[in-house]
Amino acid sequence: MIQTRGYAAIAPHTPLAPFEFTRRDLGARDVQIEIGYAGICHSDIHQVREEWGPSIFPMVPGHEIVGKVVALGSEAGKHKIGDTVGVGVFVDSCRNCANCLAGNEQYCLEGLVPTYNGYEKDGTTPTYGGYSKVIVIDERYVLRVPSSLPTSGVAPLLCAGITLYSPLKHWSAGPNKRVGIIGLGGLGHMGVKFAHALGAEVTLFSHSPGKESDARRFGADHFVLDTDKEALKKGRNSYDLILSTVSAEMDLNPYLQLLGMDSTLVIIGLPGKPLAIAAENLLSQRRSVAGSMIGGIQETQEMLDFCGEHGIVSDVEVVSAGEINLAYDRTVKSDVKYRFVIDAATF
Amino acid sequence: MIQTRGYAAIAPHTPLAPFEFTRRDLGARDVQIEIGYAGICHSDIHQVREEWGPSIFPMVPGHEIVGKVVALGSEAGKHKIGDTVGVGVFVDSCRNCANCLAGNEQYCLEGLVPTYNGYEKDGTTPTYGGYSKVIVIDERYVLRVPSSLPTSGVAPLLCAGITLYSPLKHWSAGPNKRVGIIGLGGLGHMGVKFAHALGAEVTLFSHSPGKESDARRFGADHFVLDTDKEALKKGRNSYDLILSTVSAEMDLNPYLQLLGMDSTLVIIGLPGKPLAIAAENLLSQRRSVAGSMIGGIQETQEMLDFCGEHGIVSDVEVVSAGEINLAYDRTVKSDVKYRFVIDAATF
Repeated sequence: MIQTRGYAAIAPHTPLAPFEFTRRDLGARDVQIEIGYAGICHSDIHQVREEWGPSIFPMVPGHEIVGKVVALGSEAGKHKIGDTVGVGVFVDSCRNCANCLAGNEQYCLEGLVPTYNGYEKDGTTPTYGGYSKVIVIDERYVLRVPSSLPTSGVAPLLCAGITLYSPLKHWSAGPNKRVGIIGLGGLGHMGVKFAHALGAEVTLFSHSPGKESDARRFGADHFVLDTDKEALKKGRNSYDLILSTVSAEMDLNPYLQLLGMDSTLVIIGLPGKPLAIAAENLLSQRRSVAGSMIGGIQETQEMLDFCGEHGIVSDVEVVSAGEINLAYDRTVKSDVKYRFVIDAATF
Repeated sequence: MIQTRGYAAIAPHTPLAPFEFTRRDLGARDVQIEIGYAGICHSDIHQVREEWGPSIFPMVPGHEIVGKVVALGSEAGKHKIGDTVGVGVFVDSCRNCANCLAGNEQYCLEGLVPTYNGYEKDGTTPTYGGYSKVIVIDERYVLRVPSSLPTSGVAPLLCAGITLYSPLKHWSAGPNKRVGIIGLGGLGHMGVKFAHALGAEVTLFSHSPGKESDARRFGADHFVLDTDKEALKKGRNSYDLILSTVSAEMDLNPYLQLLGMDSTLVIIGLPGKPLAIAAENLLSQRRSVAGSMIGGIQETQEMLDFCGEHGIVSDVEVVSAGEINLAYDRTVKSDVKYRFVIDAATF
């Protein structure tokens, strides 16, 4: 077994604290990664605090991982020692269901293996995430990271990045398309960057006037306050795609009315309460509300390559291990521009 | 002006009663139709009773119209005297917006001209519907009816029929597709007939065990009671398309869970309250909830031609003008198999 250390929550609601644990010895197709940075995703906090139901403790969170390959299993050939690589929200899947075979592992019908707060396929070995110095992962679930990118800003691409890139590609964001992004946080700021880089005309919808300059810096062509009824009325029937990155409860109906014929509002944030959708807003213009969840392995690789070509990373604040609990509190208050990443050298 | 008579509601909530009125003289591209049958659509009742907001009175309802051409305007060339023709939910549209130009007149961005309870494009002349002996309509909004079909069963095709045919075609119902229809009423029974004729594997979902034999007679391969939790669980992730024809409030989430990857639940009935959709049912399998509303002129013609090829009509109960109010009460109680049509000879 490989000794390592990181930060863990020993029980729900306890502060994260230093934690010593082991990683498995390398299997034939495993990759051992020395972690450089791990992003703090709001879902880490939800799971530590059991806001999504019971969790598994001790929990080492972290599913936005970037690092360097330091050892390879005997048959591992996808990566080389010294390569910069990434690991995202899952570290295995059934590999046999229709979705896995189609490259949509994120929707694995047998249930994928989450990077933390889950069990390996044996059903008993807990998975531990990226808030640690070392991780061991099957090479098939390890992504290549373009060497041109600053690694701290890469970490959040593995969850926040692909979560926006996948629906933008699936619903054909690109030239001559009007794309709206609701909310400019860790998810939304990646949405603006990607939609702009894909060539779409981008509007950022926000309730904070202070977000406008950043939104425009990331590539937004337009900025609309959610209180600006006139702008919302003027925009009716004109959008091809709108992505809602807001997990707080909100009324989506004014945004549905912005969609043109056969267009889609995609839910990415996971609100606690059911969405209240007025059916007439769907019947009119044959609109849809859809959901999207991270992305598959091949698509995540495509996203990282796209980031390499376009020089896209997340805007981050780097913190040390000792600052994780403070960073959690600030994340809950949306007081971060735009993602915290932990420097793994400080574990 | 052309004198005619029919049945009208003089004010909200009053019983329908005999009504004498006029139709316009034929314009160059107008068609004068002697009505044979007019279907009773639940939306007639909603509008007569002002359940959807203020209506225009006196109101001659009826937007499921079949009849014979008895006169033509000087430049009308699409139909011939004696042709059997149909008229649906709208009798004009702007003809210039992107949706009209694409043949999606039902989603006209300038607002279409409803067959009744609306105004002609001049904004002042009220439209009167199909509960009458004669109607005058621009030929562009008049459909050809295959001569092989019994006309009483054709009338409901112009609303109930196209309302189901359009989403089945748009979301590619056909061979090797699993299609679910929720509810076996005027809409649902058309959905089963069309989905079956298109080659799909059809499941009818109902809360009435008594509907099974009819569902199977119309072409359903499977019948599932909405209380059968085991069947609903077994069907998870397996449907390509589900159409909800129910306008009563209901929990759609168990049906969303039946949808496979990238599949869609289409809302056709218009419930009074917002739909309550659990976002996780959308995020899982990248599912969608969409809406659909009748169909365009070209698609309605395609549907009628399809009905001619496949011998499809609505199952109807023919009533006389004097029975309309009774038929309304029975429609509200879902006590009709499966659509009332009024014999226009009795006006």
